[in-house]
Amino acid sequence: MSYKKAYLALTEVFTRLYRYQHLAQIAGWDQHTMMPDRGSEARTAAMAELGVLMHRTITDPLLKTSLAEAEQEDLSDMERANLREMRRRWQRANLLPSTLVEAQTLAGMRCEHAWRDQRQANDWNGFLANFREVVRLSREEGVLLAEHTGSSPYDALMNKYEPGMQSTEIERIFGDVKAWLPSLITQVRERQAGETVLQPQGPFATEAQRALGLDVMRRIGFDFDAGRLDVSVHPFCGGVSEDVRITTRYSEDDFTQSLMGIIHETGHARYEQNLPRAWAHLPVGQARSMGIHESQSLSFEMQLGRHPGFLNSIAPLLRQHLGGAHPAFESANLVRFYSRVEPGFIRIDADELCYPAHVILRFEIERALINSEIEADDIPALWDEKMQAYLGIDTRGNYKNGCLQDMHWSDGTFGYFPSYTLGAMYAAQYFASMRRVYPQLDDEIAAGNFSHVFAWLNEHIWSQASRWETAELVRRATGETLNPGHFRAHLEARYLA
Amino acid sequence: MSYKKAYLALTEVFTRLYRYQHLAQIAGWDQHTMMPDRGSEARTAAMAELGVLMHRTITDPLLKTSLAEAEQEDLSDMERANLREMRRRWQRANLLPSTLVEAQTLAGMRCEHAWRDQRQANDWNGFLANFREVVRLSREEGVLLAEHTGSSPYDALMNKYEPGMQSTEIERIFGDVKAWLPSLITQVRERQAGETVLQPQGPFATEAQRALGLDVMRRIGFDFDAGRLDVSVHPFCGGVSEDVRITTRYSEDDFTQSLMGIIHETGHARYEQNLPRAWAHLPVGQARSMGIHESQSLSFEMQLGRHPGFLNSIAPLLRQHLGGAHPAFESANLVRFYSRVEPGFIRIDADELCYPAHVILRFEIERALINSEIEADDIPALWDEKMQAYLGIDTRGNYKNGCLQDMHWSDGTFGYFPSYTLGAMYAAQYFASMRRVYPQLDDEIAAGNFSHVFAWLNEHIWSQASRWETAELVRRATGETLNPGHFRAHLEARYLA
Repeated sequence: MSYKKAYLALTEVFTRLYRYQHLAQIAGWDQHTMMPDRGSEARTAAMAELGVLMHRTITDPLLKTSLAEAEQEDLSDMERANLREMRRRWQRANLLPSTLVEAQTLAGMRCEHAWRDQRQANDWNGFLANFREVVRLSREEGVLLAEHTGSSPYDALMNKYEPGMQSTEIERIFGDVKAWLPSLITQVRERQAGETVLQPQGPFATEAQRALGLDVMRRIGFDFDAGRLDVSVHPFCGGVSEDVRITTRYSEDDFTQSLMGIIHETGHARYEQNLPRAWAHLPVGQARSMGIHESQSLSFEMQLGRHPGFLNSIAPLLRQHLGGAHPAFESANLVRFYSRVEPGFIRIDADELCYPAHVILRFEIERALINSEIEADDIPALWDEKMQAYLGIDTRGNYKNGCLQDMHWSDGTFGYFPSYTLGAMYAAQYFASMRRVYPQLDDEIAAGNFSHVFAWLNEHIWSQASRWETAELVRRATGETLNPGHFRAHLEARYLA
Repeated sequence: MSYKKAYLALTEVFTRLYRYQHLAQIAGWDQHTMMPDRGSEARTAAMAELGVLMHRTITDPLLKTSLAEAEQEDLSDMERANLREMRRRWQRANLLPSTLVEAQTLAGMRCEHAWRDQRQANDWNGFLANFREVVRLSREEGVLLAEHTGSSPYDALMNKYEPGMQSTEIERIFGDVKAWLPSLITQVRERQAGETVLQPQGPFATEAQRALGLDVMRRIGFDFDAGRLDVSVHPFCGGVSEDVRITTRYSEDDFTQSLMGIIHETGHARYEQNLPRAWAHLPVGQARSMGIHESQSLSFEMQLGRHPGFLNSIAPLLRQHLGGAHPAFESANLVRFYSRVEPGFIRIDADELCYPAHVILRFEIERALINSEIEADDIPALWDEKMQAYLGIDTRGNYKNGCLQDMHWSDGTFGYFPSYTLGAMYAAQYFASMRRVYPQLDDEIAAGNFSHVFAWLNEHIWSQASRWETAELVRRATGETLNPGHFRAHLEARYLA
């Protein structure tokens, strides 16, 4: 057996895929930030062609042999972890016939495209006509993936975003949250009832908001030699780890959403920018999971960004860029503003406390849907029931601000929602861990010094990339696997202290 | 024989190539306009991977059979022209071993990269060290390509940019120009000696210059639903025909170069934007040649953009965007400014009259070099001699502003230079033709009405794409093949009238 021959052959294929993915990412970023309308059709065709190429590359029959042979080769720990990740990606791609993948892409595009208008028109029945096919194909995908892992179809879909996580585990965790969250929300709302919160009054010029955003990004360590900030309708973090492209959108009436959105995306960006460069082109050098990715954006947005000390430290920047000594820019008001709890219809507008309720509701519905325990037609009634139970909100007949609000289901992204709340929980657990190591952490944050936060994240998360399975990564970082107690403790400390 | 089977198989391959090319173009545009420094290495790797893929696609041995079979199929005229263009591209790619292509890419990158500093340092000997290898490989390429066509190696390289053109023909045309150009320059300079030309004094804010540029682009028909204007160090027209990306660079001291540069690139852009959409994905639907491409940019920049009537029509925009009634913005001054003739060292700064002299000099040197009649070491002496003869300028020892000034040779782009002056000549011939059809053309231009110009270009050039060989395209458009007499007549009319 020659020296790591099969393993090296695999790294060549995955390096090629990484380079194709680079082109897909840049073209995708361009599509959402730069491309004029009429460029769309040619771009879609080019992206689809690239998708076909990538699928053909990872389903090349030679890979099966190489993966088997590489298992027998003398590999380092990193290489073995790399092999594990390569096999995971190969497995997923090879379990699905390309006819199914194509049918899913088409059905998802059709449903999502129509959804944009149907949502505005509150047209649930119109949506259902396309959506049933999306569900049918996603179930088929789930069944095919699950045959290999022996899990439920829903778990198989969720594992695309959160490898190794089981929905029974999520059910247990979310069940725990459901037991205390509604009453915590009520309690916090009572406490906040007498507070006065000033909403900063615009107009705030886009250029001033952008300058503020860039300044804050610099403070929290975004590397502008390896990334950019631009504008898109739906904010995202894209590009490649060597060149991370984050986006925001500006409203002249309100800078607060854009500012916190920029902090959120900067969290994603710093994870990407600090992945180990030497392994960047291989799966082991890439981000661990979507839950871990969200744990970075939420470490930045929730743990750090809404931290009273952090808000205090950036308050002068608001005055500097947005002009004047407006009382709404006082740090005490900013803290009240960014910790205001108020149940509402829309997930992406939800505060830190209500957000998990939105996620739990979606998890419960999508799991039952993919596992064929309910049908698409049953969604509105379940939505109404759960919104009432978790947030006390009546959504009957309001599809637009109810079950039609998210893009995820329309294009077949089932199994993603849990990652948001897992991320919030991981982030709380990281900060609990940091405070054990650096008891002075909160004082440092209040002084505008975030270096211990970044050093900890770099050591325990960023530099580790996909070296460990998620549970092991978290255990090594914090001394225990996911423990939602930290999330509860964080919320109680922040909102009831 | 089944219906057009081989032809249709070819169109599939070339459609795939077109989509890959789309990604290369967008990633290339991004590289020069958006990409931060540290993104460079990963981008280069991704682009090289795409280059390998495209080369592999067009050298697939199946293409040879399909091309032969398609010749026997029952094709329409357009399809037959498409087959001719497919064969041309296939031929060129398949005559060169990929080892040579890779060696050229590497040697070109190395030489061009070092050239940036060497030019600044006036370091001809340092440049030579890398450049000899670039020349050696380009000669090898020329010999391989020429074996097939029976032409000289230089003609074979030039034909990459100007298919079907022979250097004996160029020699004849340029020989004619050399006979009258130097004395015309002298004559014009004597006439202009007593003129007062005001150089507009800045600073001109970048934003105001951009707004002016966008306004002028609108007037000359750029379609902003299918393209953009951005900033890059070296202005270019890139992107894809469905989404054309032009660039400029701004200097706050001087708006005049950026403005005329934008008009130039808009000429390239309108050609691309108006190629026949139904054929865009196939070679026959794409731009005819680099000479024809330059004929569009120069129709816009030289024929239209420096036309006294045109300058008169946009003078109000200068006052509007750049502020005030500065005497330099008077149209009479603008006309004098943009038609000022003054021999200088630098090709890209040259005026309409001196530009051909720069090109002729380069053509003569690069042809002798590629055909192994001279060596790289001989270039400076030839440069000095020809600059003295054609423009009366002494460049001895001044490599920086002499033979080191262009990027073309450093990365092995031999055979391109003639396209610039061929383009200028075609453009003059088009406008002579237009004036025969629309005798009122100059009055219309002065009234800010360019519709006949665009209608003529659209009918005779844009919509024709690569349907005809270049000579036939020009003959159909103007009633004769390339006739440099129109260029001379244009220059005499503009500069001596």
